[in-house]
Amino acid sequence: MDTAYVIDTLFTLFSITLIILMVPGFAMLEAGLVRTKNVSSVLTVNIMIYAVASMAFILIGYSLAFGELQSATMSKWAFFMFQMAFVGKAINIMSGGVGERAKLLPLALFTLIMGGIIYPLVVNISWGMDWIKDTVFDLNMVDLAGSTVIHSTGGWALLAAILVIGSRKGRYVNNQIRVIPASNIPLVVLGAMLLWIGWFGFNGGSVGSISTKEGADSVALTIFNTNIAGLAGAISAGIVTYTRYKLFDITMILNGALGGLVAITAGPHLYTLYDSLLIGLIGGVLVMVAVPLFDRFRIDDPVGALSVHLINGIWGTLAVGIFAANAAEGITFFNQLKGVVEIAVFVFTVSFAVIYAINKVIAFRATDEEQQQGLDVSECGLEAYPEFKRAI
Amino acid sequence: MDTAYVIDTLFTLFSITLIILMVPGFAMLEAGLVRTKNVSSVLTVNIMIYAVASMAFILIGYSLAFGELQSATMSKWAFFMFQMAFVGKAINIMSGGVGERAKLLPLALFTLIMGGIIYPLVVNISWGMDWIKDTVFDLNMVDLAGSTVIHSTGGWALLAAILVIGSRKGRYVNNQIRVIPASNIPLVVLGAMLLWIGWFGFNGGSVGSISTKEGADSVALTIFNTNIAGLAGAISAGIVTYTRYKLFDITMILNGALGGLVAITAGPHLYTLYDSLLIGLIGGVLVMVAVPLFDRFRIDDPVGALSVHLINGIWGTLAVGIFAANAAEGITFFNQLKGVVEIAVFVFTVSFAVIYAINKVIAFRATDEEQQQGLDVSECGLEAYPEFKRAI
Amino acid sequence: MDTAYVIDTLFTLFSITLIILMVPGFAMLEAGLVRTKNVSSVLTVNIMIYAVASMAFILIGYSLAFGELQSATMSKWAFFMFQMAFVGKAINIMSGGVGERAKLLPLALFTLIMGGIIYPLVVNISWGMDWIKDTVFDLNMVDLAGSTVIHSTGGWALLAAILVIGSRKGRYVNNQIRVIPASNIPLVVLGAMLLWIGWFGFNGGSVGSISTKEGADSVALTIFNTNIAGLAGAISAGIVTYTRYKLFDITMILNGALGGLVAITAGPHLYTLYDSLLIGLIGGVLVMVAVPLFDRFRIDDPVGALSVHLINGIWGTLAVGIFAANAAEGITFFNQLKGVVEIAVFVFTVSFAVIYAINKVIAFRATDEEQQQGLDVSECGLEAYPEFKRAI
Repeated sequence: MDTAYVIDTLFTLFSITLIILMVPGFAMLEAGLVRTKNVSSVLTVNIMIYAVASMAFILIGYSLAFGELQSATMSKWAFFMFQMAFVGKAINIMSGGVGERAKLLPLALFTLIMGGIIYPLVVNISWGMDWIKDTVFDLNMVDLAGSTVIHSTGGWALLAAILVIGSRKGRYVNNQIRVIPASNIPLVVLGAMLLWIGWFGFNGGSVGSISTKEGADSVALTIFNTNIAGLAGAISAGIVTYTRYKLFDITMILNGALGGLVAITAGPHLYTLYDSLLIGLIGGVLVMVAVPLFDRFRIDDPVGALSVHLINGIWGTLAVGIFAANAAEGITFFNQLKGVVEIAVFVFTVSFAVIYAINKVIAFRATDEEQQQGLDVSECGLEAYPEFKRAI
Repeated sequence: MDTAYVIDTLFTLFSITLIILMVPGFAMLEAGLVRTKNVSSVLTVNIMIYAVASMAFILIGYSLAFGELQSATMSKWAFFMFQMAFVGKAINIMSGGVGERAKLLPLALFTLIMGGIIYPLVVNISWGMDWIKDTVFDLNMVDLAGSTVIHSTGGWALLAAILVIGSRKGRYVNNQIRVIPASNIPLVVLGAMLLWIGWFGFNGGSVGSISTKEGADSVALTIFNTNIAGLAGAISAGIVTYTRYKLFDITMILNGALGGLVAITAGPHLYTLYDSLLIGLIGGVLVMVAVPLFDRFRIDDPVGALSVHLINGIWGTLAVGIFAANAAEGITFFNQLKGVVEIAVFVFTVSFAVIYAINKVIAFRATDEEQQQGLDVSECGLEAYPEFKRAI
Repeated sequence: MDTAYVIDTLFTLFSITLIILMVPGFAMLEAGLVRTKNVSSVLTVNIMIYAVASMAFILIGYSLAFGELQSATMSKWAFFMFQMAFVGKAINIMSGGVGERAKLLPLALFTLIMGGIIYPLVVNISWGMDWIKDTVFDLNMVDLAGSTVIHSTGGWALLAAILVIGSRKGRYVNNQIRVIPASNIPLVVLGAMLLWIGWFGFNGGSVGSISTKEGADSVALTIFNTNIAGLAGAISAGIVTYTRYKLFDITMILNGALGGLVAITAGPHLYTLYDSLLIGLIGGVLVMVAVPLFDRFRIDDPVGALSVHLINGIWGTLAVGIFAANAAEGITFFNQLKGVVEIAVFVFTVSFAVIYAINKVIAFRATDEEQQQGLDVSECGLEAYPEFKRAI
């Protein structure tokens, strides 16, 4: 009994460590994708989110989601911290997509509300106390590590934010889409790989217990399938980018990998190797299709977060209803779809209202002059690379 | 019995891995904070310290600190390597603060003596064989993972080094303090986050055993509280920097987080969540207060190491006497203070003497011309970013 | 029984995580060592290798090497993924050395064949089903984690590739060797340290079981000795570079460390501390000797992969026959040498034939104009650092 408690605690601490590696992961990815004049600002937002969202979740959100802190199967402090490690991810997804024009102070306010209330309510009805159980809204979807609960949730909040805040100055001019190149490709690669590795803790840890033979098999299968989907997403995105442009665009290949990782996240414990392969391949293709589509609708998302997290969060949740419909009782495509829609409506509506309200008090959007100059000057008072002479 | 041995060995190997992640952590943090012309030199010093200090500790220091290599509760090789992983940290603290003007060869000599003798003696009287037990100097302080043994120790050695070596050329001119901006902010963020994550191994591993229910709870609480203090330090530093300047200075926010992490390190297994929060908040504020204060006294510390490690190492050790005075027999504010003072006197005196003596033989300080040109040329013969045109 | 299964699964998942950290490790190391105009291309190759080699190994290679997927002592998914994590490393070694002139598409083809067939056959006869058992070719060498199976294998494939593809344009002109400086030293340090830490999983995980007292001791000793050899390699390379040039060349110091790590990899479970120290010291010196030697023969290897992986892979395998000849029955210098030679002949011959054949269909070598412009433009359509003005 104690041995199981000890091993599950150790395993959860290991998983936590990997998930928190996603903090520098997101930070490096986003810092690499934006222009140098906004790099410090984007990094500051990432650290702010880790600090503010985690603290809000610990002081307020956890009890909203789960009630009293307790755990019979592992140290409650490990369980508490594991849940805390998740919260920032949803908000990171959102902040990345409004990079280069959203200001830190209103983002911090939204982070407080999202980390303290909105996300915890989503967890409540999916993984937590479940306040809507036995009502018509009751969710019965399977979402192991958050294709919907984390990724779509972050994605819907991001869509709401983009609708309120608008696109970057100069991005869409005279029916033209101006391409804004990523400023530091090694950071993009480093960040994406830290996210990838962090995902092993995210998904593996979500199985909950490794301390039996069945648990160990389930955790190992989960991590194995997670990796397969990432590999497959990279491969399909790579094939699409080469077929279309005769070039290998590493930023798209990595977004393809991340798309595959998001897509597998709802059910990696339920799939075969070939299911995972297919889910990841489709995930990578979806990213390639979605990125230009959002641009066509003038939805400006500098890091491709909507394509990676929202689209693949939906795809991944539905995939459980397709590939694992017989894996356990109650898994149906309809239940998965219902979960996707209900959480979409809830998160989008509430996020939009909150962001709209905050925006009335403190403008989210940096002025055209501030954007022109770069947010590093107006927000942080320091440049990311002050000694490097800029060519553009 | 064997299961506990196996689990504690595995847990210690996991902790070791996290601690050694602090090697690139310190290296990236410091490389990001100094000017590009000194980046290769700073990186070389970091790798030199890992190699020389670890080797000196293994070949000489360990037996000074602990006597014969043995461990009943886990593999002795895991215990040996865990202790080795600590030694470089104290010296990293010291080397960071004399960056941009200290030369590598005398630093290597000091590293040899500090890693082989000075630090092991500090460990001897705190965590080790305890040669001064039952004398008037006997230490009875609680210092789980080294607020004093690692962080203040490194800080006192650094203060001694700055007094001998002096400030960087051009830093203080005509009663003016010239601000020297950090050259690469993404590296600062990456490095700080690797340190943060490494801290989980540092503090968690220092509990010593995870293989019982009580041990698992203690380790999980330790890591949880460690993280809380880091979050709190970031938040309080962020609030201070915004209140004072209406800007979010990410380097100060991260130093605040590190200050919180140093402060919690003496007693994370003893605190409640709210203790940890308060200790971290104060840690972040102390960094914000101390950085300009050291500058006022013309103590030139390019990475803020004294504010982070020395000041918060002292604060963290005293905090055990404040927040955990009743947690176990013998924990008193006086005992904590006595430990701080005795180790301060020992480390500062011995370090000053050794650095002073080395400096007589091989000058620590790069010449004004070498500093002007950057130490990368004179020390390493290679630039960190040879292709990037420099604006300043 | 179940507890051992659980613990070995957890330990293997931990090891896998560390090994996959070597993906960003290799990527950052190589991105830092090449010129900025080839950085995106080199990064893309690294991610391509992880995706294509892993997938080829999972779908084809594993069953060639091991037969049916099964494992009695841990989750088969953990064992499968652990073996998968190895495959990319051998190919990374090869791709690094042909950087700045090899094109991605033919490299992807070779990766498919190497990951799906060549490397699995090497594993078959060393760690796997062993098709040549009881023939005159039977291997009896000890090679715990692949000094030969991974590192020399990658090295021989690289040598074959360099012979087919040739050196970079402008590298050897009029009997002169043009020095091409590394473009980003912090990335080199970060990458090397991620590799170093990843090595703990590589070598530790290769012991196979941590779930007994003997297993725990063996794993801990393995990781301890691995680290010692890395430290020693850094120290001896540092001494040589300072003695020769009065400078500390951090790229050579790190290659020395990596050389020591490669050298220890065949037998870290068999050595004493002092064996490991000596093996690592020699490993560092070998790198320092080999780098200019390859240049003298006009074998152009921008990252020093042949010196680190091929030379030290051979040295490390032979070292088992020298330092551990009495450690277990059948360990002889002759058996080690036989293993080195047989795998050398097999890998070099097959790789040369495959690369030669691919090169007839799709030219491996970028044209002089493409090299002049940098491969990032022709291969990826994006620059690594588009905003930084280049001085050279």
